[in-house]
Amino acid sequence: MRDSYHEELEALSERLVEMTRQARHGVARATTALLDSDLNAAQEVISGDEEINRLDDEIEASAFDLMARQQPVARDLRIIITSLHMAGDLERMGDHAVHIAKIARRRHPDSAIPAELRSIVLEMGHQAELLVIKAGEVITEGDAAKARELDTDDDQMDRLRRRLLTRILDPSWQHGVEATMDVTLAGRFYERFGDHAVHVADNLVYMVTGEKPEESENEV
Amino acid sequence: MRDSYHEELEALSERLVEMTRQARHGVARATTALLDSDLNAAQEVISGDEEINRLDDEIEASAFDLMARQQPVARDLRIIITSLHMAGDLERMGDHAVHIAKIARRRHPDSAIPAELRSIVLEMGHQAELLVIKAGEVITEGDAAKARELDTDDDQMDRLRRRLLTRILDPSWQHGVEATMDVTLAGRFYERFGDHAVHVADNLVYMVTGEKPEESENEV
Repeated sequence: MRDSYHEELEALSERLVEMTRQARHGVARATTALLDSDLNAAQEVISGDEEINRLDDEIEASAFDLMARQQPVARDLRIIITSLHMAGDLERMGDHAVHIAKIARRRHPDSAIPAELRSIVLEMGHQAELLVIKAGEVITEGDAAKARELDTDDDQMDRLRRRLLTRILDPSWQHGVEATMDVTLAGRFYERFGDHAVHVADNLVYMVTGEKPEESENEV
Repeated sequence: MRDSYHEELEALSERLVEMTRQARHGVARATTALLDSDLNAAQEVISGDEEINRLDDEIEASAFDLMARQQPVARDLRIIITSLHMAGDLERMGDHAVHIAKIARRRHPDSAIPAELRSIVLEMGHQAELLVIKAGEVITEGDAAKARELDTDDDQMDRLRRRLLTRILDPSWQHGVEATMDVTLAGRFYERFGDHAVHVADNLVYMVTGEKPEESENEV
């Protein structure tokens, strides 16, 4: 009984890592959709979100089942509760990839991102991938020290977003209202994707140490 | 023991209702901050968010404690898990009120919202209040039928957001990049506030009936 119990706890963690893979794939393809005005990529992200939602549901069902049958206490209970939180954050990361893909779909066959902002958006996409890959690693390794690094890694995403906003607020910006809206929202979605990766890492720290990191409040 | 246990379950529910009151107050004051360029109101929302976060932490600690000590099963376990989800959504509603207040603070002493959009934004603020009040009522009353109405109530918020976007995409829109960004983000924050109220109601339905409503996916 206890063996199957610990296998199920392990399976929770594996499902979370699988969610990080799916979220990474989603945001990478969403960035492609956005920069290459690639409608197939956009559709793939939008329909692929079901898989992330399914994993979230599985984690919830499994957590519920574990709590009802095994009545875990202390550290095991903390693992289960933090897994639920992490699954929630990863599910929202998938949603943000979908939101980015929908911007691309809405503007297709036009591109939502003006040429001079492509390199910044590409970097935001890469930073998003880096954050979610690292979130997956800290879950696999249970490494609280590495998890604490994500807050600093995310600062780079915030800097990129400020660069984006500086560019659209510059008097030389001449791209009209639609582009302003698209860039404003895309910037926000990448930033939120990063915030949720930091939350996943914060929960890992709590899972491993029992101590809650200060919530990192991000500027809009 | 069982009596104090049920009192603690009841206290979870009371804290959630208190969170709806705080979230309502937050979004109402944020709307005032935005429309009247009222810096005091903005600061009040920003500093008041601590109270919502504190309630969220209390609910989490209490849920953890209940699960560890009482090892609830079936319906009681469902009540505790859904309370955690509802607290998470209400905490984010508080964050969205803060995001709106920060737009007002950033533009102060100017107004972030051009005169011709004031009535739409005012309506969005009222709709946000209506949604969170109703979310509080369904928690108090445990009324799944009324909870199911929130999805439709939220359609009005989505319509208001579309009206907002239609206005800023109209060729007559002449308010420049900052106003376009502010209105785009404010519209999104009100819409997300509404989405989270619907999630709270969805969780109440699950709490009461054991059946999960279909997740309502909202367009960006």
